[in-house]
Formats: sequence, C-alpha cells, structure tokens
Amino acid sequence: MGALRSATLPPTTDSRFSMRTFNFSAGPATLPLSVLEDVRAEMLDYRGTGMSIIEMSHRSAPYEAVHRGAIGLVRELAAVPDEFDILLLQGGATLQFSMVPMNLLASGGRAAYVDTGAWASKAIADAAIHGDVYVPWTGRDGGYRRAPEPDAIAVAEGTRYLHITSNETIGGVQYRSWPKVDAPLVADMSSDFLSRPVPWERFDLAYAGVQKNLGPAGLAVVVVRGSLLGEARPAVGAYLRYEAHGEKASLYNTPPVFSIYVMEKVLRWMADEGGVPAMESAAIRRSQMVYDEIDASDGFYRSPVDAESRSRTNVVFRIADPGREPGFIVRAAERGLVGLGGHRSVGGIRASLYNAMPVEGVEALVAFMNDFRARRS
Amino acid sequence: MGALRSATLPPTTDSRFSMRTFNFSAGPATLPLSVLEDVRAEMLDYRGTGMSIIEMSHRSAPYEAVHRGAIGLVRELAAVPDEFDILLLQGGATLQFSMVPMNLLASGGRAAYVDTGAWASKAIADAAIHGDVYVPWTGRDGGYRRAPEPDAIAVAEGTRYLHITSNETIGGVQYRSWPKVDAPLVADMSSDFLSRPVPWERFDLAYAGVQKNLGPAGLAVVVVRGSLLGEARPAVGAYLRYEAHGEKASLYNTPPVFSIYVMEKVLRWMADEGGVPAMESAAIRRSQMVYDEIDASDGFYRSPVDAESRSRTNVVFRIADPGREPGFIVRAAERGLVGLGGHRSVGGIRASLYNAMPVEGVEALVAFMNDFRARRS
Repeated sequence: MGALRSATLPPTTDSRFSMRTFNFSAGPATLPLSVLEDVRAEMLDYRGTGMSIIEMSHRSAPYEAVHRGAIGLVRELAAVPDEFDILLLQGGATLQFSMVPMNLLASGGRAAYVDTGAWASKAIADAAIHGDVYVPWTGRDGGYRRAPEPDAIAVAEGTRYLHITSNETIGGVQYRSWPKVDAPLVADMSSDFLSRPVPWERFDLAYAGVQKNLGPAGLAVVVVRGSLLGEARPAVGAYLRYEAHGEKASLYNTPPVFSIYVMEKVLRWMADEGGVPAMESAAIRRSQMVYDEIDASDGFYRSPVDAESRSRTNVVFRIADPGREPGFIVRAAERGLVGLGGHRSVGGIRASLYNAMPVEGVEALVAFMNDFRARRS
Repeated sequence: MGALRSATLPPTTDSRFSMRTFNFSAGPATLPLSVLEDVRAEMLDYRGTGMSIIEMSHRSAPYEAVHRGAIGLVRELAAVPDEFDILLLQGGATLQFSMVPMNLLASGGRAAYVDTGAWASKAIADAAIHGDVYVPWTGRDGGYRRAPEPDAIAVAEGTRYLHITSNETIGGVQYRSWPKVDAPLVADMSSDFLSRPVPWERFDLAYAGVQKNLGPAGLAVVVVRGSLLGEARPAVGAYLRYEAHGEKASLYNTPPVFSIYVMEKVLRWMADEGGVPAMESAAIRRSQMVYDEIDASDGFYRSPVDAESRSRTNVVFRIADPGREPGFIVRAAERGLVGLGGHRSVGGIRASLYNAMPVEGVEALVAFMNDFRARRS
C-alpha cells in the first residue's frame, strides 16, 4: 500500500494513485482516473472544435454523437432489448419517484411498493401522492435487515406494477433474486445498475441516478418499455411525460450535457474492462473481502444485514463499541481512505464499492480494518 | 482579428484566443476561458482533497462551500432581497413550465401568460395543463415582432400572477420595460438573467436555465418569494414542491454538482468584471455593434424585430436574399465564428451574445458581416 498518500500532499500526476485518495462515498462517487484525465485533456477544446463540450450546442454533430453513444452503450452493456427506450433525464431518482406513478398510473390501477428501507420509503411516499399504492411487504419491523424472499410477495389482482429498490444505498440491503410476482417490475436501481445483469422480460421500467456507478450527478437513466410511452400520456407538463422525451431521444429540452459526456466515457471504460460480467465479478470480490474481514473479527465489527441480503455495492457495518466509530473514520481518512461515514440518518460505517473502486482500495481498507482491530482488541 | 483561427488548427494554450473559436451558440454557450482553465486545473484533485469535485459527496464541506457560495453570489449579483429564496434545480426552464403553475396555482386562482413567441408558447401549453390560464396579450398576429408596451396588458381580477418571457431566445424579442400590472410578475429569464437588473419588488418568481449566461446545462436557478413556499404545498411528489428544496437549501436530493461548481466560478468572474452593471453595459455595446451593422447595410441584412424590442442577448437577423444565408454561416465558421445558424424552427441567422462573449468576438463578427456584404453587393 505504498502508493497511498494523505490528502494533503501536493498534486502530481506521476503515478496512478499518487494524488488520489480511495473514495468510498455513497455518491457522488469515485470515477475511473482515465476518464477524469480524458475530461481534463478535452476541457478547453473538444476534439478540435475550438470549444469545450460544455459550451457546445446540444444540437451539434459532436454532441449528438456523444449523446447517441451514451444511449447505445447503456443498451449494449445492460443488454436492453429493442422494445425498451433508454431516456436520459434530470432530477435524479427523486424526480422518478414522482414520474413513475404520474406516467404508469395515468390510466388508473394500483401499484405495489416493497418497503426495504430509506429509499423505498421515499419512493412510496411520493407514489402515494400520485396514485393508489399499497405495500405488500415491509422490512420495517425487522429493522430493515433483508430483502424479501423471491416468493414472499403476493400482489393483489389488477396491480399495475411492483416497485422495488434493488439496493438500499443507506441500509446496505440488496435483492439477490428478483421477486416472482404476476405483475411487471419497476425498480430503483440507482446504486447497482450496471453492476449486475437484469432480466428485462420481467420489467416495465428501471431507473438509476448515475452518480454512483456511472458518472457525475445531475442525470438519471430511465429504461422503459416503449409500448408504455404511447399508452401513458398523463395530463402533466411536457418534462414530466416519458413520451415527450422518448419521441425526441432525450433531446426534448437541453440535456445535462456534461453528465452525459462523462457517463459515455465511464461506459466505454466499463466495456473495455469486460462489461457487466466483469463488473459483477469485481463487485462480488470487493464486497466479499470486506464481509470476510467483518465476519473474521470475532465480533469487533458486525454487519446489521442478514447474510443473504448483504449489498455488494454498499457495505454497511458497525463496531461493537460504537464509541470507536468516529476514531475509525478519522484514522482511515488519515491513511487516504475517505467517505467511510455511514449515512447521517443511521451513523456507523459504510464502504461504498462501486464499479470504479479499484481492488487496491479495498485491500487498503481491509488492511486498515485489521490493523485498527489488532491495536484495540 | 489576427487572433482568429480555424477550428481545425491543433490546440494550444499559448494565447487567449488561439485555440478557441468565437461561439455564438444560443445555449449551451461560450464560457469565460479562465473558468474553463480553472476547471481543467482542478479536475483530478479538487484543492488537495485527493478527488475531483464530481466524485465528492454533496454533503462534504468542500462541496457545501461551493454550493453556498454559488447561491450567495446569485443573491449578491442579482441584488435579490432576503425575502426571496434562491433554489438550484434540475430539469431546466422546461420543468419550471410545470412547477410554476403546480406550485403557484396549488391553492387555486388564475394566471395570465403573455405570448411573445416560441418559449412563451411552451410555458403557456404546460401551464394550461396544470391550472386556469389566460393570455391577455399575444404577438402572434404581428409575427412576434415585439414585446408588449408596459401598459398594454390588462389582467383580470383575481389573477394570481402574470407570466412573461423576458427574452425570447429564438425570436430575439426582449422586454425593455417590465409590464405595469396589478399582479405579481413571474418570469422566464433564461436568456437574460444577470445581464440586466430586476426590480424584485414586482416579482414573485423568476427562473433561468443556466446554460446561456451562467454555466453548463443541467441546472436552473429559481428565485422565489419565500412566503410562497409555506403557502404552496401542492399534492405532488417532493421534487416538484419548491418548499422541499427551500427547506434544504437545494440539497434535498443530490444536486447537479458540476453545473453548480462551474456556475460559481462564472459568477465570481462576473463579480470581478463589475457585476450586472458591467454585464448590462457590455450587452448593450455588443448588441448595438451588430444592430448598427444591420441598419447600415442598405437592406442587405434586416432585423425581423421592432427596434424597441430587439434583444441584447440574441441578435436575430436575415439576409434580404435568404439563399445567401447558408453561405454566410459556412464562411463565418471558416473564420472561427461558429453557432450562427438561426433556430431550426425559423432559420435565418442568430448571434447569441451572452455575458462571456468577448467584444473581440463581436468585432470579428461585424467585420465579417461587412466583408460578406461588400463582396456580394
């Protein structure tokens, strides 16, 4: 771990990690260094156009190539079938909490929402404002320790869709298998999109804020079954209708150019690294390294999540003596391991391990965890 | 104009304009070179934090300083009184076309919308979906050649607000004086915000997509009278309620970090240049140079806008022989003057002259216009 440096050293570009901390933030999150270097190199003059990509008309040929490229790469990497549209929208997953029911319940019907924690609860609260919603399964009474078993959910007849949160970024709870129900699935995949395969035939819609696995904040990817666009024309303004964006290939209004531009580079990096199969293997490997350290700690560290629902992208854990957690976070930061504080609503420790987190970062974290425990046991 | 170069020359940073075209795009639009240089310098390591600003938690101290700084600079530069909140939202002006009526008409009442062209029409269409809306003045029959006289608008009793489009980016029509009516004003100021002073006492709300005068696409600034936030709690999801964002200082959900970060730099640049008074003087000077060239052209060029409503940020003009327009645009681009095509819905020529357009760019444009005319008259 000789490459680790404190964040206070002067910047240099000499070696791969020399100026960079390992950043375990839950999002915005670490990005591939090669992508940032590319962005830096192109900042004043995008490929001989004499201007930055962020100054360029979104109707220009160079930008449209980036835009189409990004959509094409999402389709390729996530293996999205042709019958789905891929939309690039603003407002993050939070605006989707409104847009999903506004559009998919526009012609009536009920929707079922599974409650697996903080983010599911936010989706439910907004959906209940816009439509007729019920909760067929909640983890609340169990302290949100797990996702439901695949056959644990029974949906009522006429249920338009079942909404799930594939990974709870705050609670560290992730579905390992998708629910088996007689209704199409709709999923908030913000923190695990493109880190696992998706059986699209069971889905009507999936959405993800990109600021975790895919790029800079300010953009959400929405994958929606195309047949729904014509069907769902709710009586709301243009920005809030999926069909308005679908008809114009997400150029209905000025898109968030920079976020799409960087995402396109991150997607190319993912493709070069081996695509979703490689991302999934790496997610399993990285998260297992940390869970193994937790489980081998004789109770010094503990995971609040049942083993079969432990997230591969957000490893949440506690120290048996919680008074040691602030010290853990400070000492880790001194060794260049930053962003390890749990969400402010729950405390504890959280290591977010998204696609761009190098295994060296996880090795450094595990070595630190081991060292921290050894000195205090 | 020896500093002008074709866009095909290799990049260099040796002199101020050597690698850069003059970019007259209507938005996204040209930004100050010093801002882009700053962004480039900080891209891999934001001020010794060991990460890029786009990788950093939006709850971190360094980002919060940028966020608060941006809001503070908007307040300072636009002289926004304390009784207004300044919100930083996603979805551009287009989402505001929905959010304004969703919030301001939540408790009922009618709103009046002035129709000055393409953007006003879009605002009207969305508002009519969400509320009771009428149009007290339209420029349609006159071919959208002007804004209304200040006392030309009579609003019906009980009118909740009068919505105007302070500058029509496509039509090149701008209000020189604000309407005098017995209702608060609400304005789409996307293409002239911070290029002119605003008499806030007459306003309830103003909004602007930032991708023209202020920064990269993906962000809208909304200035809203604070007393309205408590009043307007429409039954819609959180992202769509101004009060949700107001309560959390626009950190209700992950904000569009990069756009806010760059905007903060652009705002500091504006402050260094002398603030809104300097921006307004420059806007008058730049636009007058082009209008003078048009008016002195013996009818070779013509403005479709009445003199008293000619925009200072989007100078729209035609060539008497429209067959010459494509050649004008191509020849100009060969001389490093790009983005001069009119909006695809209307054609013609449009020179967008936002705050960051250097006067050298306008001198080059005027010299080119003169030369183009001389060779063809």
